[in-house]
Amino acid sequence: MKKKPLILVTNDDGIAAPGIRALIEVMKEIGNVVVVAPDSPQSGKGHAVTIDATLFCNRINIDDQVTEEYSCSGTPVDCVKLAVNELIKQQPDICVSGINHGSNSSVNVIYSGTMSAAVEAGLEGIPAIGFSLCDYSWDADFDAVKDYVRTITLNALENGMPKGVVLNVNFPRLGRDEIKGVKVCRQANARWAQEFDKRTNPQGREYYWLDGKFVNLDRGEDTDEWALANGYISVVPVQFDLTAHHAIQTLNSWKLND
Amino acid sequence: MKKKPLILVTNDDGIAAPGIRALIEVMKEIGNVVVVAPDSPQSGKGHAVTIDATLFCNRINIDDQVTEEYSCSGTPVDCVKLAVNELIKQQPDICVSGINHGSNSSVNVIYSGTMSAAVEAGLEGIPAIGFSLCDYSWDADFDAVKDYVRTITLNALENGMPKGVVLNVNFPRLGRDEIKGVKVCRQANARWAQEFDKRTNPQGREYYWLDGKFVNLDRGEDTDEWALANGYISVVPVQFDLTAHHAIQTLNSWKLND
Repeated sequence: MKKKPLILVTNDDGIAAPGIRALIEVMKEIGNVVVVAPDSPQSGKGHAVTIDATLFCNRINIDDQVTEEYSCSGTPVDCVKLAVNELIKQQPDICVSGINHGSNSSVNVIYSGTMSAAVEAGLEGIPAIGFSLCDYSWDADFDAVKDYVRTITLNALENGMPKGVVLNVNFPRLGRDEIKGVKVCRQANARWAQEFDKRTNPQGREYYWLDGKFVNLDRGEDTDEWALANGYISVVPVQFDLTAHHAIQTLNSWKLND
Repeated sequence: MKKKPLILVTNDDGIAAPGIRALIEVMKEIGNVVVVAPDSPQSGKGHAVTIDATLFCNRINIDDQVTEEYSCSGTPVDCVKLAVNELIKQQPDICVSGINHGSNSSVNVIYSGTMSAAVEAGLEGIPAIGFSLCDYSWDADFDAVKDYVRTITLNALENGMPKGVVLNVNFPRLGRDEIKGVKVCRQANARWAQEFDKRTNPQGREYYWLDGKFVNLDRGEDTDEWALANGYISVVPVQFDLTAHHAIQTLNSWKLND
């Protein structure tokens, strides 16, 4: 019998979120599970690390079938760093992050704590996948996507991850029978049309809430936005070498040394 | 006479840091300057945005020659969003971020608030440059690099930025006469060998400080690490389409729809 893989599970919605509990359910069928996740919601924290404050970490036990479970005070990226460098003695075979309550498609990959945790694992040399469901509600239907979570994870374990790549997987908000399948995609060119909701506090001081609308500027049919809008699960290979290699030649024509 | 460019200045070390004041000094010679920067240090905040808390923003006046100057309670990315969508009526011609106290070369680009601010401006369609000096001290010698900051910024204004690209500029910790020139580079393949300093607080509870060593795994002579170690200023074109296009074919051979 093959050795069971060691699976690190994290997220950005916090360790008690239904999305991570659904992810843990699937992972328990595949391997030995260690959970290291934030003790509070950390959405939109991007690749933030905590260098100006201390980190607390409690061993907890929400699920008896999980090998070890830790709740941490930091960001999703802190959780991965703590897991790999302090809490787990052995390198995980894979890191899965999510299932996020809400989309991390297109440019959201950059703001997403879920995906930043996966990228951090990738930087550590661990195959990693971020899973997100396009439904922000707390009682989103994660059952509909569990079979796909299993299939994608098993594929990654079997095939290994392409070098320097982690996966950004987004599920459309559809019933199990309505989902058409999986599409490998590129990140759509989209942006947030940001608006700030300006208010006045009881002391008369003005403050802002960040708000905005997601605008897809991309008409391509090979994007994650297209896939999701058309009933498919999107899988985008995400890299953390951010070099725009194609731009090096252009920059070499600039007069930077005059 | 050509119209003076509108320049948005931000950073992650906070609005009073010597690095941003040096950057403002140079930008005042080039155009009309608006400063929107964090009211406190925001190093390592990556691409975090504030969605779970309110944002405060104060108009201040540290420098009489600056058109407008705002101190904000959020992250560097919040500052850029506030600047572009709320505080400034006109789209800036360029956004410059820094000069960071400390290196943002190689993989540090991902953790860096300085560079995330530049990336956010890039996402908004604004040419953007992050500047960092490889010296973490508060009294680092920014005078040595001012001429290069000017040259690189003027080049960007004149040539325009390649599409989907922002620049990550790092200066070696050298005197003006010791710097050999500018090299356009790729991001070195490096990582943080993270260590956690585990302590016990007065109440007997364990906590951690994030610590670690930067390890360059890349022997290439076309990287930012090589340039900096050999007396050059590194300029890396950074992209925010994170798709690993080269990996799409491989993923299409996986059995994701079985």
